[in-house]
Amino acid sequence: QCDLTGWWENELGSRMHVSDIDSQGNFSGEYHTAVSSAQKPIKPSPLIGSQHLDEDGQCTFGFTVNWKFSDSTAVFVGQCFAGDGGEEVLQTAWLLREKVDSLPSDWKATR
Amino acid sequence: QCDLTGWWENELGSRMHVSDIDSQGNFSGEYHTAVSSAQKPIKPSPLIGSQHLDEDGQCTFGFTVNWKFSDSTAVFVGQCFAGDGGEEVLQTAWLLREKVDSLPSDWKATR
Amino acid sequence: QCDLTGWWENELGSRMHVSDIDSQGNFSGEYHTAVSSAQKPIKPSPLIGSQHLDEDGQCTFGFTVNWKFSDSTAVFVGQCFAGDGGEEVLQTAWLLREKVDSLPSDWKATR
Amino acid sequence: QCDLTGWWENELGSRMHVSDIDSQGNFSGEYHTAVSSAQKPIKPSPLIGSQHLDEDGQCTFGFTVNWKFSDSTAVFVGQCFAGDGGEEVLQTAWLLREKVDSLPSDWKATR
Repeated sequence: QCDLTGWWENELGSRMHVSDIDSQGNFSGEYHTAVSSAQKPIKPSPLIGSQHLDEDGQCTFGFTVNWKFSDSTAVFVGQCFAGDGGEEVLQTAWLLREKVDSLPSDWKATR
Repeated sequence: QCDLTGWWENELGSRMHVSDIDSQGNFSGEYHTAVSSAQKPIKPSPLIGSQHLDEDGQCTFGFTVNWKFSDSTAVFVGQCFAGDGGEEVLQTAWLLREKVDSLPSDWKATR
Repeated sequence: QCDLTGWWENELGSRMHVSDIDSQGNFSGEYHTAVSSAQKPIKPSPLIGSQHLDEDGQCTFGFTVNWKFSDSTAVFVGQCFAGDGGEEVLQTAWLLREKVDSLPSDWKATR
Repeated sequence: QCDLTGWWENELGSRMHVSDIDSQGNFSGEYHTAVSSAQKPIKPSPLIGSQHLDEDGQCTFGFTVNWKFSDSTAVFVGQCFAGDGGEEVLQTAWLLREKVDSLPSDWKATR
């Protein structure tokens, strides 16, 4: 059974902490990114999201990170996989939205 | 000033309602999608997310939709633009994660 | 029947010319972008790609643009739709890869 | 110096062969995918693309794969990195476009 609660680290060295999951599947937490495209110093930033609560526990989930050191927002979506040895692995994809001045620059705002 | 609170509709006919934004920028709401890749009937589904609270109000934001009719999760990230005439436009990008059975199928889980 | 050969313009004002399609579905052409994230002046850039050759003509296709004014590469993938009035519409998605110095910067290279 | 010519294999077990690069940076080749979302048997499929020809050789590139066993098209964009030990690594991102019947289904056609 995959439980998102706790600490996770990805292959870039970014770490996140996920709080307890409530009965709706909602959770909050904190994201400590190891990488940044912004020029200001990195700060831990709050995250909020939700997960499916399925019987098999290999649930999909998503969350939003509200960066505290730049006016940009990231979203992550993924699934938790339970390995043979009992370890849990998260597979995620993400989008990072940077603020742009006006609509004509919108095409390049997301990576 | 862009305020996310209220009803929004996209070009596909999907509609969402965003609740009041709290002092941290967090919000919840409900997403009524007009399109689906699942086979079960569509149901309104809860969303949760957060936005930046900048002075100019053209903030970036993100949210997660926890689909109630399929074991999949969507995330949206975007920015609110205030038009000349006072109207507000949201520009967003999204990822949809469908549940897959095992890690070898992970490559095709996100669209 | 959708035929890619000829001039196309997108909603940002970028224009492209697609040459004759050969018997394998391969084509070349030139892309005149209206937008850029590079600092050098925009130049027309060569494209090369291929399309499916189906009976109904609503084929999928893809192409690569080798930018002549920056060390980056774009790929587009899409489908041609024939409208009721005989007009043809291309729906595409794209990825833009910018050159980065080293592997640790790879995470931010694509938008 | 990164040279794309030759055989490459990714972490999913897919393999591709890239032909000689011409003076414009164009190349062709063949992609042997190990994974598929189509129901027909997998067949080797032609690819066509181009790369930048920079002095440092850590060039960006892109290519299109015209699947021979389904009416869909994939595009890959990436960069070649030369490792300390002389080995070469390709980092890529991709989009897969599946054919859909009509414009209202366009939203789900790309993953």
